[in-house]
Amino acid sequence: MSLKVTVVVGNPKAMSRTRKVAELLVEKLLEPGTYECEVIDLADHTDEIFAWPSEKVAALNAQVAESDLVVFASPTYKATYTGLLKAFLDRYPANGLAGVTAIPVHTGADFTHAMGPTFTLSPLLVELGAMVPGRGFYLALSQMDKLDEVVDAAASEYATNLSRLSNVAASVSQTTLAAQS
Amino acid sequence: MSLKVTVVVGNPKAMSRTRKVAELLVEKLLEPGTYECEVIDLADHTDEIFAWPSEKVAALNAQVAESDLVVFASPTYKATYTGLLKAFLDRYPANGLAGVTAIPVHTGADFTHAMGPTFTLSPLLVELGAMVPGRGFYLALSQMDKLDEVVDAAASEYATNLSRLSNVAASVSQTTLAAQS
Amino acid sequence: MSLKVTVVVGNPKAMSRTRKVAELLVEKLLEPGTYECEVIDLADHTDEIFAWPSEKVAALNAQVAESDLVVFASPTYKATYTGLLKAFLDRYPANGLAGVTAIPVHTGADFTHAMGPTFTLSPLLVELGAMVPGRGFYLALSQMDKLDEVVDAAASEYATNLSRLSNVAASVSQTTLAAQS
Amino acid sequence: MSLKVTVVVGNPKAMSRTRKVAELLVEKLLEPGTYECEVIDLADHTDEIFAWPSEKVAALNAQVAESDLVVFASPTYKATYTGLLKAFLDRYPANGLAGVTAIPVHTGADFTHAMGPTFTLSPLLVELGAMVPGRGFYLALSQMDKLDEVVDAAASEYATNLSRLSNVAASVSQTTLAAQS
Repeated sequence: MSLKVTVVVGNPKAMSRTRKVAELLVEKLLEPGTYECEVIDLADHTDEIFAWPSEKVAALNAQVAESDLVVFASPTYKATYTGLLKAFLDRYPANGLAGVTAIPVHTGADFTHAMGPTFTLSPLLVELGAMVPGRGFYLALSQMDKLDEVVDAAASEYATNLSRLSNVAASVSQTTLAAQS
Repeated sequence: MSLKVTVVVGNPKAMSRTRKVAELLVEKLLEPGTYECEVIDLADHTDEIFAWPSEKVAALNAQVAESDLVVFASPTYKATYTGLLKAFLDRYPANGLAGVTAIPVHTGADFTHAMGPTFTLSPLLVELGAMVPGRGFYLALSQMDKLDEVVDAAASEYATNLSRLSNVAASVSQTTLAAQS
Repeated sequence: MSLKVTVVVGNPKAMSRTRKVAELLVEKLLEPGTYECEVIDLADHTDEIFAWPSEKVAALNAQVAESDLVVFASPTYKATYTGLLKAFLDRYPANGLAGVTAIPVHTGADFTHAMGPTFTLSPLLVELGAMVPGRGFYLALSQMDKLDEVVDAAASEYATNLSRLSNVAASVSQTTLAAQS
Repeated sequence: MSLKVTVVVGNPKAMSRTRKVAELLVEKLLEPGTYECEVIDLADHTDEIFAWPSEKVAALNAQVAESDLVVFASPTYKATYTGLLKAFLDRYPANGLAGVTAIPVHTGADFTHAMGPTFTLSPLLVELGAMVPGRGFYLALSQMDKLDEVVDAAASEYATNLSRLSNVAASVSQTTLAAQS
């Protein structure tokens, strides 16, 4: 069965470089033909992000929560993720991203805020119940000319991490695992 | 092949409740017979934790870095992990826990510092290259009378998370994975 | 000259308890007659929070940046401040709150997220150039019946802190201080 | 009366550049003749940092807690403050730095971990009851050749911040302030 993948882009301007970086990461990380990927550019939905209820945003929330893998990508605003991305995540109940594997991505002007995805976005996603398989990925604009190489390295790290996590998964107590359901 | 598991306890006093909680979590999470677990009680090594070099501490560092799964357990000191645990982790070079699956555990008097393991210890372990399969585990002393139940729930959550991460791992690009080596 | 004070409320629903708590804190902290306080309930401005440019929101941003003291109050959403508050702060340039004394306030259901204002909202405000005179203030709903007493204690702590900071200010190098302008 | 100032250095190696940076910051920030400054190089006390009780370390803890202004300076280890500094701070009871004005300083190889003092050391000091008058100060080694200029700018920012905080302090409710005692 095909893996369900979503890219969520938190830039208030649509079609950003941040989106492109996130899409490239998915392409490099996963085996072609094994997954389907959709992109949610939150810039297209700012008019309803604070509407309550909103069928449209509720559908987007559901799509993300039902994904196997989600890349949450945001430009760096004030050292951390955007308010737009946070406003989207705020609509979930507690534990609303349970079972989702999430990769936090920040882009920024330079390396001053490189700690952002690991120290601010990652804990937020984890708080919502998601699993983050390693460091957050930070890309500085000065790296845009070697984008391919930088994303390759990140994809490779996540691939290795996921493979190592599988080894541990193989030893999990079946009784404990069964108890969850 | 047997999974290599280590429990690292950051309490400056040996044989703490924190250690007991961490050991119980391992027992409940993993299938008996599939792993070997050793415990490093850092309280036993405070005399050499700032010595440089130290064969003894270097051996402990290596043991942890070569583990498949490590539970890092600390009482809550000033809302976060102890200086003793940090001093042990400080001895690693950058990326020194690469490939290690790590579970952060904090114990505390009440729930005031419940954000600690997810928002402070987890980013630190991830910064060192480790993967954390979900939220950090926080146990308040008021929960000691239902310890079994609380640890069961945590173990069950990690088991489910690891199983979900395996699903994603199965779709990882083999080219990308191979490129790592 | 009168102190300029603003309360910024990040709750997407207007006239919240969070607002009330923040207003009470200002009343208790400051000497009557020495200040003027205005409240910005961001819930009233969600329609333009992502509009660019927006004269209305720009005016609000300016009002806050020109204040001597600002209480930033938010309910706890996903362990931290709301996306609405962040979206408002995102509109500032780097250092946009330079010179502002800021007090971070979070309200929440229980104490599980009590670390939020000190560990998440406070660094964000400081990143923007603001000064935070002590811990963030966290109020759990279970404390609503002794609201007066709890806010008294917080106000008293900020009052003492500000007084101590004044002592240090008195020894600041006049050469260094003059160099800023 | 003379301002009591202390520099606490968290580098496990004595007489570090980090210490020098912190001492320079004090010199530039304060008016000569208005203060007395002592330095605690924690590297000199690693043998007793985990001893309990320890008269020597207790005396150091008291000296810091009784200071008006303390600069806490640490090299960046794993993106944050050292375990040695944390171990020293762990010896305080809750609120052990109440009333202390604290300036967090990190030094690091490059700007990758520039968020450290503001996002990790500052909340820790604040949790202990200290007031931090603005951003943490981060110095990259690449800036060592213009050290004077960089520290000037930081000192100037703290001087301005403290002056602004005094303005707010002047409007504090005398009733509330008196209630503290």
